[in-house]
Amino acid sequence: MIKDTIKDAVSSIRETVKQEDIFVTEETGLKMPSRRIIIDIIKDMRRVIFPGYFGDENISSSMPDYFLGNMMTEIYEKLKGQICIALKYREQEALAPDKAEEMAADIAEKFIGKIPYIQKMLLMDIQASFDGDPAAKSKEDIIFSYPGLLAVYVYRISHELYVQDVPFIPRIMTEYAHSLTGIDINSGAVIGKYFCIDHGTGIVIGETTVIGDYVKIYQGVTLGALSTRKGQQLAGVKRHPTIGDHVTIYANSTLLGGETVIGDGCVIGGNSVIMKSVPAHTRVKINSPEITIIPDSHGTDDIWD
Amino acid sequence: MIKDTIKDAVSSIRETVKQEDIFVTEETGLKMPSRRIIIDIIKDMRRVIFPGYFGDENISSSMPDYFLGNMMTEIYEKLKGQICIALKYREQEALAPDKAEEMAADIAEKFIGKIPYIQKMLLMDIQASFDGDPAAKSKEDIIFSYPGLLAVYVYRISHELYVQDVPFIPRIMTEYAHSLTGIDINSGAVIGKYFCIDHGTGIVIGETTVIGDYVKIYQGVTLGALSTRKGQQLAGVKRHPTIGDHVTIYANSTLLGGETVIGDGCVIGGNSVIMKSVPAHTRVKINSPEITIIPDSHGTDDIWD
Amino acid sequence: MIKDTIKDAVSSIRETVKQEDIFVTEETGLKMPSRRIIIDIIKDMRRVIFPGYFGDENISSSMPDYFLGNMMTEIYEKLKGQICIALKYREQEALAPDKAEEMAADIAEKFIGKIPYIQKMLLMDIQASFDGDPAAKSKEDIIFSYPGLLAVYVYRISHELYVQDVPFIPRIMTEYAHSLTGIDINSGAVIGKYFCIDHGTGIVIGETTVIGDYVKIYQGVTLGALSTRKGQQLAGVKRHPTIGDHVTIYANSTLLGGETVIGDGCVIGGNSVIMKSVPAHTRVKINSPEITIIPDSHGTDDIWD
Amino acid sequence: MIKDTIKDAVSSIRETVKQEDIFVTEETGLKMPSRRIIIDIIKDMRRVIFPGYFGDENISSSMPDYFLGNMMTEIYEKLKGQICIALKYREQEALAPDKAEEMAADIAEKFIGKIPYIQKMLLMDIQASFDGDPAAKSKEDIIFSYPGLLAVYVYRISHELYVQDVPFIPRIMTEYAHSLTGIDINSGAVIGKYFCIDHGTGIVIGETTVIGDYVKIYQGVTLGALSTRKGQQLAGVKRHPTIGDHVTIYANSTLLGGETVIGDGCVIGGNSVIMKSVPAHTRVKINSPEITIIPDSHGTDDIWD
Amino acid sequence: MIKDTIKDAVSSIRETVKQEDIFVTEETGLKMPSRRIIIDIIKDMRRVIFPGYFGDENISSSMPDYFLGNMMTEIYEKLKGQICIALKYREQEALAPDKAEEMAADIAEKFIGKIPYIQKMLLMDIQASFDGDPAAKSKEDIIFSYPGLLAVYVYRISHELYVQDVPFIPRIMTEYAHSLTGIDINSGAVIGKYFCIDHGTGIVIGETTVIGDYVKIYQGVTLGALSTRKGQQLAGVKRHPTIGDHVTIYANSTLLGGETVIGDGCVIGGNSVIMKSVPAHTRVKINSPEITIIPDSHGTDDIWD
Amino acid sequence: MIKDTIKDAVSSIRETVKQEDIFVTEETGLKMPSRRIIIDIIKDMRRVIFPGYFGDENISSSMPDYFLGNMMTEIYEKLKGQICIALKYREQEALAPDKAEEMAADIAEKFIGKIPYIQKMLLMDIQASFDGDPAAKSKEDIIFSYPGLLAVYVYRISHELYVQDVPFIPRIMTEYAHSLTGIDINSGAVIGKYFCIDHGTGIVIGETTVIGDYVKIYQGVTLGALSTRKGQQLAGVKRHPTIGDHVTIYANSTLLGGETVIGDGCVIGGNSVIMKSVPAHTRVKINSPEITIIPDSHGTDDIWD
Repeated sequence: MIKDTIKDAVSSIRETVKQEDIFVTEETGLKMPSRRIIIDIIKDMRRVIFPGYFGDENISSSMPDYFLGNMMTEIYEKLKGQICIALKYREQEALAPDKAEEMAADIAEKFIGKIPYIQKMLLMDIQASFDGDPAAKSKEDIIFSYPGLLAVYVYRISHELYVQDVPFIPRIMTEYAHSLTGIDINSGAVIGKYFCIDHGTGIVIGETTVIGDYVKIYQGVTLGALSTRKGQQLAGVKRHPTIGDHVTIYANSTLLGGETVIGDGCVIGGNSVIMKSVPAHTRVKINSPEITIIPDSHGTDDIWD
Repeated sequence: MIKDTIKDAVSSIRETVKQEDIFVTEETGLKMPSRRIIIDIIKDMRRVIFPGYFGDENISSSMPDYFLGNMMTEIYEKLKGQICIALKYREQEALAPDKAEEMAADIAEKFIGKIPYIQKMLLMDIQASFDGDPAAKSKEDIIFSYPGLLAVYVYRISHELYVQDVPFIPRIMTEYAHSLTGIDINSGAVIGKYFCIDHGTGIVIGETTVIGDYVKIYQGVTLGALSTRKGQQLAGVKRHPTIGDHVTIYANSTLLGGETVIGDGCVIGGNSVIMKSVPAHTRVKINSPEITIIPDSHGTDDIWD
Repeated sequence: MIKDTIKDAVSSIRETVKQEDIFVTEETGLKMPSRRIIIDIIKDMRRVIFPGYFGDENISSSMPDYFLGNMMTEIYEKLKGQICIALKYREQEALAPDKAEEMAADIAEKFIGKIPYIQKMLLMDIQASFDGDPAAKSKEDIIFSYPGLLAVYVYRISHELYVQDVPFIPRIMTEYAHSLTGIDINSGAVIGKYFCIDHGTGIVIGETTVIGDYVKIYQGVTLGALSTRKGQQLAGVKRHPTIGDHVTIYANSTLLGGETVIGDGCVIGGNSVIMKSVPAHTRVKINSPEITIIPDSHGTDDIWD
Repeated sequence: MIKDTIKDAVSSIRETVKQEDIFVTEETGLKMPSRRIIIDIIKDMRRVIFPGYFGDENISSSMPDYFLGNMMTEIYEKLKGQICIALKYREQEALAPDKAEEMAADIAEKFIGKIPYIQKMLLMDIQASFDGDPAAKSKEDIIFSYPGLLAVYVYRISHELYVQDVPFIPRIMTEYAHSLTGIDINSGAVIGKYFCIDHGTGIVIGETTVIGDYVKIYQGVTLGALSTRKGQQLAGVKRHPTIGDHVTIYANSTLLGGETVIGDGCVIGGNSVIMKSVPAHTRVKINSPEITIIPDSHGTDDIWD
Repeated sequence: MIKDTIKDAVSSIRETVKQEDIFVTEETGLKMPSRRIIIDIIKDMRRVIFPGYFGDENISSSMPDYFLGNMMTEIYEKLKGQICIALKYREQEALAPDKAEEMAADIAEKFIGKIPYIQKMLLMDIQASFDGDPAAKSKEDIIFSYPGLLAVYVYRISHELYVQDVPFIPRIMTEYAHSLTGIDINSGAVIGKYFCIDHGTGIVIGETTVIGDYVKIYQGVTLGALSTRKGQQLAGVKRHPTIGDHVTIYANSTLLGGETVIGDGCVIGGNSVIMKSVPAHTRVKINSPEITIIPDSHGTDDIWD
Repeated sequence: MIKDTIKDAVSSIRETVKQEDIFVTEETGLKMPSRRIIIDIIKDMRRVIFPGYFGDENISSSMPDYFLGNMMTEIYEKLKGQICIALKYREQEALAPDKAEEMAADIAEKFIGKIPYIQKMLLMDIQASFDGDPAAKSKEDIIFSYPGLLAVYVYRISHELYVQDVPFIPRIMTEYAHSLTGIDINSGAVIGKYFCIDHGTGIVIGETTVIGDYVKIYQGVTLGALSTRKGQQLAGVKRHPTIGDHVTIYANSTLLGGETVIGDGCVIGGNSVIMKSVPAHTRVKINSPEITIIPDSHGTDDIWD
């Protein structure tokens, strides 16, 4: 009988929910930030930073000041609201409600003040992609379509919230970009100017990574930790590599460890696995495993081809 | 002349469609399941399993029983409808219409009965992710943002339909998760409790894979078949590995073959390629290919860097 | 004071925008194509090419001629409009407005004329996936769910616009597919019939790649360029490999270089890195790096596991 | 305590609902027609009957055959579905399910066959409005904006369903028009060609009214029943007047009774109250009540002014 | 120059807005209730009071308790929120924020407790309409379509808020019904059971009207004030008539004045103008103005016909 | 056979459409204005003229200049576009395309320049309603809810387009208001300041009406033409009355004729029918028809009650 099945399922879930402190069921007035609104902020920001590209508005015939000012006001209001919810949830009794609102307003205002800087950084990232990719027919293509730019765009936004210690929201932002691009940049990473990602799917850039200027990274590159087995004990420890300026890292390379430093001007060949530092101005080249060529491939299927 | 071009294109497509049995053009009353509704079910389920996180409802101030009961009723109705369509399509003459409806109702009810179990499994998966990832600032972050959890969430739902032999729907579900996360878990796989995926992009877990409890898998790991050249002849055959309890598999490793068994407590190092079984409580470590470091990387571009 | 912060941010962005020629702020009448409409075209096309699968319409009980004809008319109008916008933007003074409209109408009409051909190619791609994948329970599963088919579907559409030298739109299309599937096929690539992608996440197929008939490619395969350091100087040069007929390339292999030719009937083993040509009917097998198995993995976390 | 209040309200409503036979709460499979879909049909029909006026489609540049055919197919499907639901509900056990479907298909097909006739009638109604209204700047104005035309449009559609004895749907349609226009035409009325309504608010045209050709009616006119005190005993009896050809009825007149016949060519002056027949080619003129003019209206407010 | 025109318009409006106290421009935190949400409440309530008629849910196959409970919870939350906004706005400094929230919660809870009563009253109103209208083919028709019922439905809801002295919201509700039906019932009126409105367009029922049980009113009836020239000085004074039980008032009659009492069982003929009391069980019949019938109406157009 | 029925209906409609010049079927590039966008303009204007009342924006905490400027820019763009379409359609060959665009821009700019004036007029209309209506609990109620204000608001907007001879759009606007309020004010009428409508349903104000300042009009009042039998010959002729300053016209009165002048300070009693001029400062009082009171109304139903 379906009605009983549903009743039982309801009771059982209710029981579980009561026992888990990640669910707010008491009338505390607490609530969770809204993923939908946070994603709206990302979309709104694109219309501010790349005017004319992503909305239906015809920026050239309208009055950009009013458009930009109005969009930023809306972004400010939405962001302030979400930050406030997130702070209240994390701090609970430790934070008086109006203190939370004040902090949220302060953080959101600082964020708005950073928008021109974020835009300038992104224009340099676009230039880097255009210079480095013969398949880029125009900078417009990059703005419209390049997943690398999208991931960096979201990273640069979320990083400004990360450095102000905002809970939940930076991660929701970067995982949204991860979902769209397959590129996973933690908002805690520090990334310099003229940063270029090519193709990008599978890239992982960990929380304590530091990347200099003029760096280019290809698909499948991991800038990771040596081991995370200690779990939460490692929170806050530098676990991911430091990359100098003018470094290129080719596809599917893996660079690991918080003490691993790749010096300025290095080139890391594809498929490399690197767990210690590399001096500046050197090229790392993997000794490709030998390849056996067997004539007449037909009919073979007993091993992994 | 565009009008003629369209007319010709219409005729040509009509001709093709008539000849292909994958298109229903006769008035059989058959139709295809709706991808949109199936995705809605996944979204609705999230609001039931993680109350307060994904809808606009403020679960703490509302009456959770009514909310949960009403959501489950809706899920039941939608799912029953889609299963019925899918069964009728697959079975065609072999299944009387009211038999199809009865079967669909039965399957959907069994599914509803499984929701509390699915929730409990997912709470353990969240715990596993929290324990294992120093970048996880909170369990809330994991629920909101972690693609690994999202993929496992959809897998656990779809698996309950797979084991009841529902056509089309489990695959639509897991490919939806694949699209959002880059993590491709076949709904036929069997996965134990406290399962943890880190980063996740590029993971492939094949249909006949069996995974024990307390397993952790990193991005780019393939649990695949040795060869699929025999195609449909292999349908139903165990083609993918078996992973014991407490196993960790690091990034970009490839484990292949239906007879490959990784014993309890193993650790598989990154980039490994494994095509045979590994005894319990051992660590597999790839002998990293040697790396050549060439000073002064400037001006080199004649080879793959 | 937030009001001043917003005002300053507006001025600063306005200043930047004026200096960058990628932003249209003068009243030139120019505008950018609409990503939203371009994605709508992709979705509309699916309802034409796979009638009955992706819309709410019940194609079997309706009148397909009217449905198809009406959809194609709408596709034609939308596409013509977007191409016209894109041409005017790229060509600016070099193209009279009505000349742009005429060219756009011409290109869109040619595209419509190609739809039956695209459909036929895709039906062969579906057959190839079905024959090659034991986890494919039906061709319907492939149409509904397979990311490989989705990526190829979008590629085949976008390629018809690429060969007509349409700006922006082909790239927006393929990057949309890239975002959904993790499969990055440049619309400039030339791909033969019966093309099959398995799993697919992480695949990169570069702009000047040529692929024959009956080719199968697994996840993580890159068909890339040796080096792109020369950037825009390489635009138009053949930089990516040529793959013959009946070739299979297993997961995570990397094939690089415009002069690299993989002969007919080759099988490329997983994880291979190939930078020169391979004769026809041979099998390339990587000498897997040796693996060390260390008993008792417990307690080890000082190295990358 | 709000939770108890809600619980009590739920129980109480449940109790009431169980006792009333207008609520379907048992699992009979019966359901109610969807007001939303019925209104959609009205909107869709406007795009078919007045191509180019009410949708976003640019009918002049598209292919009207495909557009019209596709729209009519959709209208047919929606209407068939709603009629079937309505018949099943009204007839309950008296009608086998597939008989209901057959009847619904038959009625819907007859309706489709009437669309060209409805269109022709409406074009004559437009002509009548244009000829008679000096404020009508164009026929286009009438199609876009005239509430009189909208009410007649919906009446002509709903009448075709009324004569086929469809339950619920005709009334839902005419009350939708009533809501938009303040004009209440019962779908049972019989109305000739070149019918013109001016302004229209407050018009009531009862179920058994018969109206000839070339009739013009102003706002506030009632064509009503003398008394409805006998209620349901009068169902089916002719209770409303018969109006001949070429009759004009000025504002706020009231014509009552099933035996009241207004002969051809009559003109009924404004504010008349008529309860018996009027011979052809006569003019009815109310003796306006005398009017008193009182100088200096200031300061008076003790009576109804 | 359009840019200057806009700038000037902005300044001018800003100036006006600053001077008018009906606009909130200072950062007081005050805001206005949301008409959209208030209308949503009306729509939600219909699904609770007439289960199965107005939503997409199939109430017969679902679990009505969960559905009703969940809907009522949502209604409670929305209503509480809007009342709180309205109270804060009206009371401004006079009401502490948490006092406003408490009052709003209290009012909303009382309202929820009244829903079963409202439903019972409406079921009697439906019965009255069915008994009195030979054109009513079923009670279902009345629920779906009758504007009279819709107006009474909204009145009965809004009245429960009026008696609790909620600002803005009752009026927004009744004017919404007015807009849909042309029936203008002030939420302050007191209306007994078995109330029936026929056709309804143009009905006005003033704020201090009192109506007994079993009353029937036709289109165009005004229950109004004798004079409102004193404007706001009359606020709160009884200005509109009192109607006894079992009274029928025919179309377009006007009854005026706060001291006008229509006794039980009266019948008021159409077009009457009544400014003093009428004893019980009498019939008021207007002496229709004489009518002149002029033969041959052709060619006459020099006077108002 | 439904397919044939649809085909026949399509052909028949196509035939009709070809013959009627109100349908644009040739590829002339002409199209019709969009009712949807015109209604959007009305809604957008409300957010500009009554900031804080009708959108979701919280005007008090945002930056009103940006909000207002951005809204006006959007209104200007939409209106310019719709006017241009309307002009091209009306003028056809008589107007070069860029001349149409120039004219449209000019008209739209003039309109924007009028917004502050429109706002000021409306604030006076609100004051008039507040002063005159004891049921108005606040001016906020009037802005939110009063249909009279809504009708006047739309009239004042549409009048500014009427005087610039814009086709179609003013009528679409006023009929939209008519539909929402039952108040039919032709955009050609000239209406002074402090205009007050009470209740309003059924009011008709004709195209050539002139109304002075401080006028109040009740529901059901018609300011109409004596006869429209000459139809289009009367276009442009003054056909509707002239109302002086400080005039009150009570409910259901009818004032007719282009030469009828109601002098300053008049009061027109309810139900009056006036076809000639009335001197200033007089009160017009209808001699109410005598009323017969018949004891014991029971059992009477042979005449119109």
